[in-house]
Amino acid sequence: MNKFALTIHGGAGTILKKNMTQEREASYRKGLEEALKAGYDLLEKGASALEAVLAATVSLEDNALFNAGKGSVFTNDGRQEMDASIMDGKTLMAGAVAAVRNIRNPVQLAYAVMTKSPHVLLIGKGAEEFAGQNGIKTEPDEYFFSQFRYDQLKKMQASGKAALDHNVSADDKASSSETTADRKFGTVGAAACDRYGNIAAATSTGGMTNKQWGRVGDSSIIGSGTYANNKTCAISCTGYGEMFIRAVAAYDVSCLMEYKGITLQDAMNVVVNDKLVKLEGDGGMIGVDATGNAAMLFNSEGMYRGIKNSDGLNEVGIYRELLK
Amino acid sequence: MNKFALTIHGGAGTILKKNMTQEREASYRKGLEEALKAGYDLLEKGASALEAVLAATVSLEDNALFNAGKGSVFTNDGRQEMDASIMDGKTLMAGAVAAVRNIRNPVQLAYAVMTKSPHVLLIGKGAEEFAGQNGIKTEPDEYFFSQFRYDQLKKMQASGKAALDHNVSADDKASSSETTADRKFGTVGAAACDRYGNIAAATSTGGMTNKQWGRVGDSSIIGSGTYANNKTCAISCTGYGEMFIRAVAAYDVSCLMEYKGITLQDAMNVVVNDKLVKLEGDGGMIGVDATGNAAMLFNSEGMYRGIKNSDGLNEVGIYRELLK
Repeated sequence: MNKFALTIHGGAGTILKKNMTQEREASYRKGLEEALKAGYDLLEKGASALEAVLAATVSLEDNALFNAGKGSVFTNDGRQEMDASIMDGKTLMAGAVAAVRNIRNPVQLAYAVMTKSPHVLLIGKGAEEFAGQNGIKTEPDEYFFSQFRYDQLKKMQASGKAALDHNVSADDKASSSETTADRKFGTVGAAACDRYGNIAAATSTGGMTNKQWGRVGDSSIIGSGTYANNKTCAISCTGYGEMFIRAVAAYDVSCLMEYKGITLQDAMNVVVNDKLVKLEGDGGMIGVDATGNAAMLFNSEGMYRGIKNSDGLNEVGIYRELLK
Repeated sequence: MNKFALTIHGGAGTILKKNMTQEREASYRKGLEEALKAGYDLLEKGASALEAVLAATVSLEDNALFNAGKGSVFTNDGRQEMDASIMDGKTLMAGAVAAVRNIRNPVQLAYAVMTKSPHVLLIGKGAEEFAGQNGIKTEPDEYFFSQFRYDQLKKMQASGKAALDHNVSADDKASSSETTADRKFGTVGAAACDRYGNIAAATSTGGMTNKQWGRVGDSSIIGSGTYANNKTCAISCTGYGEMFIRAVAAYDVSCLMEYKGITLQDAMNVVVNDKLVKLEGDGGMIGVDATGNAAMLFNSEGMYRGIKNSDGLNEVGIYRELLK
């Protein structure tokens, strides 16, 4: 039996302990632990990596703390537009959606695109029509409403800016600690290796607060925000989406492993701490290889993250502290 | 002074000489020659690779023979939805649009996204709004109408299928030679190396006849349909978009060059004739490196293509014949 493992993230960015309340930190840790449990319990019962990343990502989407699904931020016109993708390392099959509205779990829609259509990427109203034809659960606008996110939009509109959930600019650092603590690139994702040595990855996001022009980041782009291949790795990214697209970040890790023969950890280190840094691509990524090794790297102040594996490791983290 | 070169494509697929009329073949060759001239003349005058790929791609978009811009195929609801992307190998800046309507030259909109927004990918109505704010030329539905494309839609709808412009299935091979001759993956693109050693690539498409659900292929995906990096190569792809996305085809060529140290031609050969073939990813790609070498490879029956460089090479091709 292969060692099995699940790793997750809930976004990266300027997340500083000094700006976080104890209650808020506890809520984030609980959310990460719940998502880890949702996916890992399945792996333990013999489910596939694909099922585990779906369950973990759905758990994070259903948690209003994270910018995906229920917790998605508001676009410029006061609604939510979500992106998601999933890839199966065994078959190299992939599915993705961009700019979908009122879908409870965009990652499940991405999975349906992968398994029930000949396509990889569906967008907007067309993707929603496909969702309707395939029994994907929708929710009314109220489900996605939260006063906190709405206040973020109003604040952002007053400042004339768009934000990747909560990236801190120098100006913003003086703002309230409650707001600043949450400033991050809002994305969630999971990567898993199952007992059969198959790997998979998924990513989901509510995008940028106050975004306009139908902007799409890396979360729905296979190769940039998500990639999985049993030969190399399964990766889910979170960060400044435009830079992750220009870096083709997820697939770059895979290529470094395949063509240079380096480890997952070393390959992720090259991409996160060298290539992305040169592009000013703040953020991070999580990943696994097909032998159950996992890695979680970020070049920002913090990344909501967690790992649980069949060797007994079970950890969540937020700041730049070392996990076991 | 660096050797400079421009290479273009107008789509790949089942393009057989026996099914082509002499007139039609002459029209395609003329269209390719015009696009080569449009881009190469600029290179000769000292313009950048970026300007050359823009000019060549615009020329192909304005030609009703090719499935991009004016010649775009009809979606399921009887309109055109176009995708395009462009990338600058010098800066790794990139721009892309997906599912845009009534834009005369989607590649120019992709260029505006790259140069006038902080984003890489804009889609649908939002991208059109951005186009309006940036003086991008629009055209009414009539501009995009052609009886030939409309007949393709009606035929496809009668058969209940969607087609990547004109990929031939076994059933379709019995159809009229005029139709069959044109069955290809409808995409256009260009890659150029200028006298300063900078490279760039661009891709544009009208998508699939009868497509629905907001399907997006590889033409607007940086890393899959388009990629450019002065360190390695500039690539534009054409083919079965879903497989090119799953293969992260354009960036894979770059990684093979960067991490394995192999040539452009050898790297393209691995991706086109091995990796894509294993995924049943019919199609091809064109590319250049920063020393002015160019390559055009395809695993399908044919690819509309052309190359012109400062060594005096000036060739267009359609079938599996060897060019000089």
